[in-house]
Formats: sequence, C-alpha cells, structure tokens
Amino acid sequence: MSDTLNYFKIKDIPVRIHGRVDGSGDVIPLLSNGHGIEVNVTGSQLWADVETEYNDFEPWAAIEINGELISRFAPDRGIHRLCLLRGVSPEETTRVKFYRELQAMSDDPKTCITIKGLWTDGEFKEPHEYDHRFEFIGDSICSGEGTYGARTDMDWTAYCMSYSRTYANLIGRELNAECRVISQGGWGVFSGWNNDRRHVIPDYYEHICGLASLYALSSNGGMISDAETKTDNAVLSTGDKYGAGKAHDFGSWIPEVIFINLGTNDREAFNQPPFTDPDTGRTYKLRTDTDGSFIKDDLELIINAAIGFLKKVRKNNPSSHIVWLYGMLGYDLSLPLADAINRYKAENCDDNVAYLVLPSANDHTIGARSHPGYESHRIVAGILTDYLKTIL
Amino acid sequence: MSDTLNYFKIKDIPVRIHGRVDGSGDVIPLLSNGHGIEVNVTGSQLWADVETEYNDFEPWAAIEINGELISRFAPDRGIHRLCLLRGVSPEETTRVKFYRELQAMSDDPKTCITIKGLWTDGEFKEPHEYDHRFEFIGDSICSGEGTYGARTDMDWTAYCMSYSRTYANLIGRELNAECRVISQGGWGVFSGWNNDRRHVIPDYYEHICGLASLYALSSNGGMISDAETKTDNAVLSTGDKYGAGKAHDFGSWIPEVIFINLGTNDREAFNQPPFTDPDTGRTYKLRTDTDGSFIKDDLELIINAAIGFLKKVRKNNPSSHIVWLYGMLGYDLSLPLADAINRYKAENCDDNVAYLVLPSANDHTIGARSHPGYESHRIVAGILTDYLKTIL
Amino acid sequence: MSDTLNYFKIKDIPVRIHGRVDGSGDVIPLLSNGHGIEVNVTGSQLWADVETEYNDFEPWAAIEINGELISRFAPDRGIHRLCLLRGVSPEETTRVKFYRELQAMSDDPKTCITIKGLWTDGEFKEPHEYDHRFEFIGDSICSGEGTYGARTDMDWTAYCMSYSRTYANLIGRELNAECRVISQGGWGVFSGWNNDRRHVIPDYYEHICGLASLYALSSNGGMISDAETKTDNAVLSTGDKYGAGKAHDFGSWIPEVIFINLGTNDREAFNQPPFTDPDTGRTYKLRTDTDGSFIKDDLELIINAAIGFLKKVRKNNPSSHIVWLYGMLGYDLSLPLADAINRYKAENCDDNVAYLVLPSANDHTIGARSHPGYESHRIVAGILTDYLKTIL
Amino acid sequence: MSDTLNYFKIKDIPVRIHGRVDGSGDVIPLLSNGHGIEVNVTGSQLWADVETEYNDFEPWAAIEINGELISRFAPDRGIHRLCLLRGVSPEETTRVKFYRELQAMSDDPKTCITIKGLWTDGEFKEPHEYDHRFEFIGDSICSGEGTYGARTDMDWTAYCMSYSRTYANLIGRELNAECRVISQGGWGVFSGWNNDRRHVIPDYYEHICGLASLYALSSNGGMISDAETKTDNAVLSTGDKYGAGKAHDFGSWIPEVIFINLGTNDREAFNQPPFTDPDTGRTYKLRTDTDGSFIKDDLELIINAAIGFLKKVRKNNPSSHIVWLYGMLGYDLSLPLADAINRYKAENCDDNVAYLVLPSANDHTIGARSHPGYESHRIVAGILTDYLKTIL
Repeated sequence: MSDTLNYFKIKDIPVRIHGRVDGSGDVIPLLSNGHGIEVNVTGSQLWADVETEYNDFEPWAAIEINGELISRFAPDRGIHRLCLLRGVSPEETTRVKFYRELQAMSDDPKTCITIKGLWTDGEFKEPHEYDHRFEFIGDSICSGEGTYGARTDMDWTAYCMSYSRTYANLIGRELNAECRVISQGGWGVFSGWNNDRRHVIPDYYEHICGLASLYALSSNGGMISDAETKTDNAVLSTGDKYGAGKAHDFGSWIPEVIFINLGTNDREAFNQPPFTDPDTGRTYKLRTDTDGSFIKDDLELIINAAIGFLKKVRKNNPSSHIVWLYGMLGYDLSLPLADAINRYKAENCDDNVAYLVLPSANDHTIGARSHPGYESHRIVAGILTDYLKTIL
Repeated sequence: MSDTLNYFKIKDIPVRIHGRVDGSGDVIPLLSNGHGIEVNVTGSQLWADVETEYNDFEPWAAIEINGELISRFAPDRGIHRLCLLRGVSPEETTRVKFYRELQAMSDDPKTCITIKGLWTDGEFKEPHEYDHRFEFIGDSICSGEGTYGARTDMDWTAYCMSYSRTYANLIGRELNAECRVISQGGWGVFSGWNNDRRHVIPDYYEHICGLASLYALSSNGGMISDAETKTDNAVLSTGDKYGAGKAHDFGSWIPEVIFINLGTNDREAFNQPPFTDPDTGRTYKLRTDTDGSFIKDDLELIINAAIGFLKKVRKNNPSSHIVWLYGMLGYDLSLPLADAINRYKAENCDDNVAYLVLPSANDHTIGARSHPGYESHRIVAGILTDYLKTIL
Repeated sequence: MSDTLNYFKIKDIPVRIHGRVDGSGDVIPLLSNGHGIEVNVTGSQLWADVETEYNDFEPWAAIEINGELISRFAPDRGIHRLCLLRGVSPEETTRVKFYRELQAMSDDPKTCITIKGLWTDGEFKEPHEYDHRFEFIGDSICSGEGTYGARTDMDWTAYCMSYSRTYANLIGRELNAECRVISQGGWGVFSGWNNDRRHVIPDYYEHICGLASLYALSSNGGMISDAETKTDNAVLSTGDKYGAGKAHDFGSWIPEVIFINLGTNDREAFNQPPFTDPDTGRTYKLRTDTDGSFIKDDLELIINAAIGFLKKVRKNNPSSHIVWLYGMLGYDLSLPLADAINRYKAENCDDNVAYLVLPSANDHTIGARSHPGYESHRIVAGILTDYLKTIL
Repeated sequence: MSDTLNYFKIKDIPVRIHGRVDGSGDVIPLLSNGHGIEVNVTGSQLWADVETEYNDFEPWAAIEINGELISRFAPDRGIHRLCLLRGVSPEETTRVKFYRELQAMSDDPKTCITIKGLWTDGEFKEPHEYDHRFEFIGDSICSGEGTYGARTDMDWTAYCMSYSRTYANLIGRELNAECRVISQGGWGVFSGWNNDRRHVIPDYYEHICGLASLYALSSNGGMISDAETKTDNAVLSTGDKYGAGKAHDFGSWIPEVIFINLGTNDREAFNQPPFTDPDTGRTYKLRTDTDGSFIKDDLELIINAAIGFLKKVRKNNPSSHIVWLYGMLGYDLSLPLADAINRYKAENCDDNVAYLVLPSANDHTIGARSHPGYESHRIVAGILTDYLKTIL
C-alpha cells in the first residue's frame, strides 16, 4: 500500500450499503449474501480495513469494478487491509463494489466481514445511482449454491455458494437495480429439506438479518446448535453484535418487486426421513402416500405457510409487486404453490402478486452439488429481466 | 417422373398416418396441421398423387427426409403429382414424411390436401417406429403462427403458420415421438380472442377433426360464415367428405402425454370490444375493471371452462399425463389457469395433471405477427423435452 | 388464382434480377444458384409464369418475403403458374424474391427455371435498393451442399444444395447486399476433387454463366458427357439458349468485394486415384509422398493456378477488394494458398487482396454429405460480416 | 487454520509444477502467467505458505478445484498463509491447482509469488496426469489482457490480465493438457507496439523465464528501466533469484504442439510514432506509405524476424507441431505472416508447421482495454480444440 493514501472511516464516506444492515454502528458488517459496500472513487488505489470472523464457514467475498467481477476470495480470519483497487488512472472515477458471496450461515453465528474504513489517494464521489430496488427471498438457489465448483463437487462448502453468479446479481446488472437477498440453503416456507420445521424463512424475514442473529434463531428455534450455544448468545453471535436480530425498518428501503423462490426444500422433505426436534422431542415428516403422491393434508400445511408468508411480506411491503418463483429444481409443487397464491389473493383482495414457473436446470445447466449452475441462473435472469421490462 | 415408377394406392402401402384421420376411405385427407403420411421406401424416387382444394387459405405442406425438413410449399389447386424424393441411392431405405403445415381453417371449409397414391421405383418397407405418442392442443402458438415470415409481417397469411417449426415437431424429433396437434389461431378455452365464445377448442375435441367439419362447426356455432354457407354443408365441406366431423375413437391412439396450451386468447378478449353473435344476437365481452384488472366473475368463466375441458380430456384419455402450458405470450392468466387445474384435480381426485409456465417470447425470440418465432419454439421445446425426460 | 389478376411480361416490370443473366431475351432464365428476381409489389397476390426444364437434377427454388425464407421446393417440369405470394393486405408493398437454390449443374445442360411474366392484383413499385454488391466464387461449400438434409444423407441430391442457407445469402441479408455466386461442387482452382483438371472454376469465370453453357463447357473440356452430347450442343443446352456462354460484361455490375473460396477440392485430389481425360487419354493425379505429404511440384501447380485466377479476377474487376477464403473443410492448403496470394500480390503490385482462414466445420456444425451445415455457414457469415464492417 | 494440519515443504510433496520453473531451489516461484502448482490431496483443508513481492503490479492468482475456477485474487505483499481449500470431505481426494494469473511483468522485476510449503490434515497423492503438453507463445492476447474488467476499463491494470480465461487454459481443460505460456503484452516478433524493438519475445524464449529476469532483460535491452535499475540487477530481480535467466532445458518438457500468436503488436507499430532507444539513441519506426499501406521493406523485417523465430523454436523443439496463430485483433498481417511461414518451411524443409487465422473479436466478444474478451477466447478455444482433435 502506498504511503500517500488517506484513511476514511466508513461512516464518513458517501458509500452505498448493499443489503439489510443496521446502520447505527461505526462499522458495516457483511452478514449475508449480497451485503456489501459500493463507492465511486478517484485516485489510483482503494483499500479496506476489514475484520473477518468465522467458526466453520469462511465468508467468501467478491469485488466488482465498474460493474464487472474481477475478484472472488475468502478473506483470512482477523483484521486485514484488503486491496480493492490498484493501478487505475487517478483522475478517473472508478466504481468499486465489495460484497459478501456467502449467505448468512445459520449454523455458524460468527461468520462476518466487518468494514471499518477505506484508504485511498483519491476522493469519494456520490455513489452510483440505481434505477430500481428488488428483493429476492429464497433458499440455496438464491444463495447461489452450485454456481461455483465442479459438477462432481458434492460437499457443502462455502466456495460453492455465491451472490456474484446468481440471477439476483445478473438482473441487477442488466436493469441497474439494487438487489437484496434473504436466503438460506436447505430452508423452506413450511419445512426444511430434512423435515426440520424450524428451518423456514418466514420466521426470519422481519429481523434485519435474522439468519445471522443467534437471538432470532434461538427464539424461533431455527438454530441447529446445542443448548450451551444458546446460553452464550450474547458472547457468540457476531450478527447480534451488529444488530442482525433487530426489527427491520421496512420503510427504509422499499422494493419495487419482491421475488420469493421457496418450496424446493419443502418438496424435498417428502422424500426424507422424519426429523425430531432436539428441544421439544417432537418428530416431523411430510408424508407421501403408498403410490408416492403427496399426502393432501401435508400439502395443505405448505400451502397455508405460503399464504401466511405472503401476508407477512405484504404487510411489510404494501406497494411492492410480489412474484413467487418456482421450478429451477423440479416442478412437483408448482400447482400447490399456485393454489397458495390464488387463495392468498382471493382472501386478501390482493392482485399485485404473480407466479412464474422457471425452467428446471438440465444436464447442460446444472452446477455443483446438483444445484442450478451459472448457466441456469443466466437463463432465469433473462426470463425475469424480460418479465420485469413488461411491468416496470 | 421416370417411366419406371410403379403406382401404389395409398391404402395398399405400409404407411404411417400422422394426425387424426378417418381411416375408412380410399384416400388420406390432410385436414389439419401435422396431418401427414410417412413411409420407408427404397428406390431413387417417390411421388404422390394428391388433390388440393381451398377457398381462401392455401394448405402449406412440408417434406422431411430422414428427419430433416427439406421442402415447404403450398401445392397448387387441383390434382397433381408431387415429387417427394428424387436422386437418392435406390438400394438405401429412405424415410419420407409429407405433412400439412397449415392448421384446419375454421373459416375455409375446403382447405385440404388429399393423398391418393404413391409412385416409386422401389419398395415400401415397414414405416419408422416411434417411442412415444404426444398430443398438443392449443391456439395460434400450436399452429406455429409467426414461425415463418418477417417480424414486420402482420397479415394473417397461411405461410406464417407451420407445424415444422413448432415445439410439437421439435419435441417429436428429439424424443422420437409421434405428435398430434389440435389447434386454431385466435381460439381459447372459453372465448376467442375477439370475445366470440363460439371459438373454443373444447367443443371440437371429440370429433376426428372438428375444426375442419362444417357439420361440427355449424352445430357448435363455431363457424364464421353466413347462413347460406350453412345450408350447403354437404356440398361445401371437404372435411366432412372425409369424416372430419365423426366422433374420434380415443382408444385408437393413446397419447402418453397431452399438452394443453390454451388461455392466451381468453386473456386477449379482456382487451377487445364486445362481440355479437350473428345467429343469436347475443353480445359477449370479458370485462376489466376501471383499474384494468380482470373482473373476477369473468375469470371464473374461464376457470370453469378450463375445468370442464380437463374433465373432457380426461374422460377420453384415462391414462394420459396432462400438462397445461401457458406463458409464451404473457403471464397474465398464469394464476387463474393454475386455479382451474387445482380445482379440477381436487374435485376429480386426479393427480396426473401438471402445469408449466413457459418463458414469454422476447425481442430476440419473437417472430412474425407478434407471435413466438422459431427461436421461441426451440427454447420451449428444450424445456418440455427436459420435463418429458423426467416423467417418461 | 383470382380472376382479378393482371399479367405483366417480366421485361415490362421494374424487377431486380439477381445473378449474372443475359438481359437480351424476353424472359429471365435462372441458370445457377442465387439467380432470381425480386419485386416490390402491392396487391394481395403474386404469381409467376415459369417453365422448368431438367434432365437429372431438378432445380430447387426458394421464396423470400420481406427478407425471410418462407418456401423452398422443386418446381415441376414444364410450364406452370407458381404462387409467390397470397393473402397479404393489398395496400401494403411487399418485397418478394424468387430465386434458384440449385447450382448450375455442369452435368445437366437442361436444368433451368425460366420466368416469363408475373400476375398480380397490385402494382409493381421500384425494387428494393441494396447498399453493397458482393461476389462469391467457390465450390460445393458456396453451392450450399449439406446445408439441407440429414447428417446421414450421403447421396449427391439436388435438395442438399442451397443458396438460402449459405453464408453468401446470410451476409447479404445482414448487410443489405446484393450477392452473386459462381460455384460448382467438386471443382477447384487447378483440379477437381477426383483429379479431373477440366473441372476448374477459372475457365468459366468470364462467361455470363459458363457452368450452364454447353458451348463453354465443351470448349474448355469441362463437361462430363459423351461425344454425342457435344455434337448436339445447340439442341440440348438450355443455358446456351439464354446466353450463358456469352462473355460477361464486367462493367455492368461491379462488386465491392469478391470472395474466392477455392482449394478444398484441389486438396482432396491428393487423396484420390488418377483421372484419365476421356477426350485426350491423358491421366492426371496430384501426388503425395510416401509420408503422406504433398509433392511440392504438385502444390506449385495449384499455386500457379491460384495466381492465374487472381490475375483474371483482377483484370476483370480492377476496383474490387478480393478476399480468398479457405478452411471450412480443413486447413491443409492454408499455407500454399497464402503463398499464391503473396506471390500474386508481389508480382502484380496489388495490395487490395486479403486472406482469411475460416473455422473448419465440426461435429456440431457439419451438415449432410459431410459438408458444412447451416450452423457452420452462420458462423462463417458472422466472421465475414465482421470483417466487411471493418473495410466497407 | 485448524490446529490439526501438518506442514510439508513443497519439495517433499508429489506436486505438479506448471510453467517453466527452475527446479533447483527449495521453493517454487510463480514468475509468469500459468505458473502454478497442482496437487491431489485428501483431508478437509489445504493451505499454502507463500511470499508475495512486487513493485507496481500485484501478481494476481487463481485457484481451481477439481478443474473449476473458484477463486481469483491478488495476494498481499509479504509472507502469508493462503487457504486453498476448506470444508471438503476428508476421505475424498481433491484436485487443487493454484496458479498465477498475471504475466511476467518486464517492467517490474519484483513481481513474484513464491510457494514454500503446504499445510493439510490429509495426504498428498500422485498429482493429476495430463494427456498432452502444449506451449503458447504470444503477446497481450496470450496474457489474457481484457479477459477481466469492464469494456470501459482502459487502464493497464494487473487485474485485467489472466491465465484463467485465456484460450490456453480453456483448451487445456477441454483436452486434459498441461499448458505453458510465454507472453508479454505489447511485445512482438520484431517490434513492440510502440516501435521499441527491444520488446520482442524471441530474445527471451530460451531462458527459463527471461521476461522475469533482469539479467536477460538488460542483456537484450528489453527492460524499460533506468540505468540505475540495471546496475542493481542482482539486488532487485526476484526472477533472477529463482533462476529465471538461466537457459531453459528444452528436453525436460517436450510440447506436442507449440502455438505462436505474435504479429499483432508488430502491426500496431506502423500506426505509432517513432521510438528512440534510450541506451543507444537510435530511433525506430515501422513505416506506412502515403496511402496507408505498409512499406514493403519494413514488412520484410517482420517476416525475417518471424522466420528467425521459427528456426529458434524448431531448433529447441525438434518434434513439436508448430502452429502460428493470428487475427484475434485484426487481419492486416495475415498474408505477410503466412509468407514468413512459407519461406521458413521451404528454406528449412520443415512441413510440421501450420497457420491458422482466427476470428477477430467483435462488438459482442471484445473485453476490457479493447482486447479480446472471455467470449472471444472461448470461441478461439473451440476452433483450436477442433483443430487439435484432427492432429493429435
């Protein structure tokens, strides 16, 4: 790093903060996928003072310069000065975005990159203006699982997930939209993939970043952790240190469109063995009939949960167009989910909700861990971009 | 034509007949899109004796040799000997398919190509065996409207329609499936695009080729023609001469999968002025509210018609997997159609029905007459082929 | 055909004639690939009075409406009235192009479609204006061999060849250019594929359509036919009846760019057995060494022929940019051909010549008869269009 | 990093070293693009102890796991422990490749990543076996300039260059080939882009990594640095510390195919002002005539240099198939380069040399800094892979 750089506290800079972040502190914590900062800066260099923490899952990050991905890596644990930009003409204004690739890890209460300040030999200009605001709610697909890695990679690694290659990011770049993602691999709208019914997104939607909050997770029962961990909440959770468990102020950032891509894990639960909640001892299972069909009563549970979630999303976002998405990993619940949306619409006299069934990933578009690959996300981003052009 | 060719009556040849055709006559009438004949033949040449009739819409046809399109044209009116194949090695067996591109024209009771016999210097072998049977029911999209012609072409011409470039044909070639199409541009499940409620496919599904039958059309009121025309049924309709209005024997050809792609014109009717039935004087209109939304009661009419049609299709095809398709020209009815399917499934305890929302044609994939172009059909064929691979 | 159509002699109409055609007669003969007529016409219909002749190879033709292919077929022998357009709005002006798909057949002196007049209920307007004029000289690749037909098709049929799917047509559509093609399957710059040295394009370049002229073919020895045929020149050759053997007036149509894609058959001749000229008894063979390499003296023969052809092309086209193309079926002569061009340029102080090596067709882009398929032509059209944009 | 990891000196491990690296030391220096290490390892983690040095251009690096890129970043200056792999199943064998993205920087004698040892909780297995060995010699195109970054990025930054997205890497992955690259942005076969004739690849081909050797650079005059720098060679050059300036042992790694992609900068020099060598005071310029054409004598200089380089490459690689490539940024020298190859072949009786002209990057495939983008490299990789399949 050159001697001629000046230090700026992150709170003293005109910075665009991506993702739901509690703005009350002196630093900016990147607690979930798509969380990041973006600046317009002159000068030849830009460095960031960051602190990286994690127990098991290293928080991968990415750098985009002038809208193109140029770097992707997992910062080391501890306090470091990261180079975000180097070698450009100092008189030009360069757009630099640094963001987290890895989803909030509900299993790892520590995973965080905290940004404290920036160093540059230039000046900060007003950050890039976006034309739209979109929110994406989902599961592993929204967490970009499988968008990096070989098709043979089957381990649940941090590097297989991304924000950079998801349809959320691709749509954002195409339509100059600020995009936020709330997603968790394996989770559903009513049940997690393994019949763990604590693993559902709706319970965490109203916190700033509930999936990174031990407080939120333990209240809802969503955290897979032993009792001891729960006791030590205050000590252990980086998210909570940075306000992840606080109520989100929905008025602070109003999305034009909210995409909900849930149901894939609820469907998987029909194929999985029962799950026993370690806290309550209760056992859960979504059941199939002898002919393999889904038990109607169990489908009804999912439908009701979807209706409930739509109500919750609407309550908090009165003006947003809501689009439920489904299909990238199979179409089995496409009709029950449509039923949920139809019932929600009728019961609530809400016509501002749409439903799209997306093409399932195939042999050519599948990625690592049998999840949609980059090519699948590109196709879906094209379909959704086309759709958005008709309604915006 | 060489002197050394021999004539074979079409009924004396091992020929595969494509499409619903009344088999009782001496000739094979091609009354609708995808109707055709297919032979495996040795010899260097193959010619067909055909008679072509039409009033306003010339029946385009196509030739595929060994599975690839090599010719597309409108045969002249009258009796002609058409060359289907020429110049190949006589000792080889060549697969030749001759089929109609143009849909049955409900406006033109004469449009027909009738095949009487074939000439060859070789021998007819057993025709090609297919692995699957699929049925496609739909509107202009299934009739391939827009798959030929320039994007600026806006006239309703016969040449803009095809079977050759539709997803039905593309899927058939990819999966070695025999495909049948029952479709009519501008028609719907409850209403035609212009609020003419006589223009609905369900009323014609149980005839062999109701859309080509003046008998069927006038009984149902579907024919746009003056009273005089109706009087002269027997004289005028080529379809009826060849049994188009007879009841179809559903046991004679059992499709594994039936695709229904209807709803696009029902949706359009909301945007169109009222239609007055010339026979009854009754006026029809699917209505929008002041805010542009669809009147719920009118949506309910479409939903009930879709449910009714599903019942009718199921009654006639107890074992077939039914897939409702929608979306290639916009998603506005995707939820009401899903509602129809869900209600049908619940009321009839029928789980063998699926629903896919297909990508809407965009600036790159649109074709003539603002209809999905060849590229749009190719994308959809890929999605449906992928789907079929998971269920066959 | 409607009763309300009026007849116009082709010579009384503002028609654009595509291809080198002797303009002195009352009719327009389509003697080679790309030969055709193009009109701008109002009215709802357009028909053509044509006469079709051939011995062995039926002359396939195509119709483009407003720049898009809508029909492709082989007209029957004899005099016929062909429908080129039907069903459009009469007040609109429609651009209609009717052209020959099949190359001049040096084996079949009869193959011809002659256009005598047109019928319409509208009026003829000034034909479409083009921005550029390009000439394409070549072999089977330029004759579109393999652009239609299945990959398994190996017979030398007329239907496998086209103008419609060649890079010449695709470039013409992309750049609004009038394109002419002079090509013959199996022929070379020095030798035909089978070591028949009479089968070389340069000998026929200066006639209007030498490849369709029995006079030209027999003078040069290029015709594969027995002596008797030669005696009956005047009787037999349709081309000669229409002036195909006359000297071409190069000043009448000056191409901006001339593409020469020759060498592929010269290369093949190294792999083929010797050929004995039936007239002279002389035997010819391009030879390989024991290690399979090309004998240098024989390469030199090709090089000198290429130099000679460049001189001939330049003499007749002083201002045209000349581009030699090679590679679509293998790269083996890419360096000797470059040598020829370099030597030509140095000896003649001519810098207005370029050389492009094109991608060889691969498993995904090959077509029928092991020739470049439509996809290969599309890729090449893209490369050449990009190149043309840099020089026009 | 977990406590349970064990340390292995890099020289004690079965590691595949990519790129020309002097093997005599205890560490592995990554001095140029494509230099790297590759291991097969069990265990859940892999870390590397590296030292990173540079003055002006940070040496970007990349990680591929099981053949797929998962990370790309610029390591910080100094000694660090880098995580290469984390979170995989310990019983599986994982293939990990860590390599340098950035070319040797002839302007920056320090740019180096040195690998000292690896940490893992698993075991090292025999490294992945490759089926082929290819060498790529070139300029900025081979250095991947423009394969990262926005199209608007025009600064000469380290991040815009790569090995990961070059056709070399793509071909290697497709054909399971070990690939080496010797390239330098702005350099030519006879002249650099700015008429600096010291900037030519041939002078550095016979050193292990001449472009990273101050010794080699100053001997040849290639280094752009002041006299003072030259005096301090021994102190300053990291490359020389690691043997970059030593003679390369060509017998140690024999490529099946050598690709030379040079000439693009030689061509550019015709457009640039004269260059005065600061050491000799001599001024150089490749000249155009008043009409913009290249002066023949100056072309001859390039041709002779190309001939000389072919001799040098052949002398050192008697058995390799040599392919000269050209065209990705314009075709202007395609014929002079072919002339050089032809003359080389004739004079040296060497038929094992080929020439391919590649498609020039267009509006859709161009990348940053007006250089071929990732898409252009993908197309070229496809063409070269097809070519290689015909000769291997």
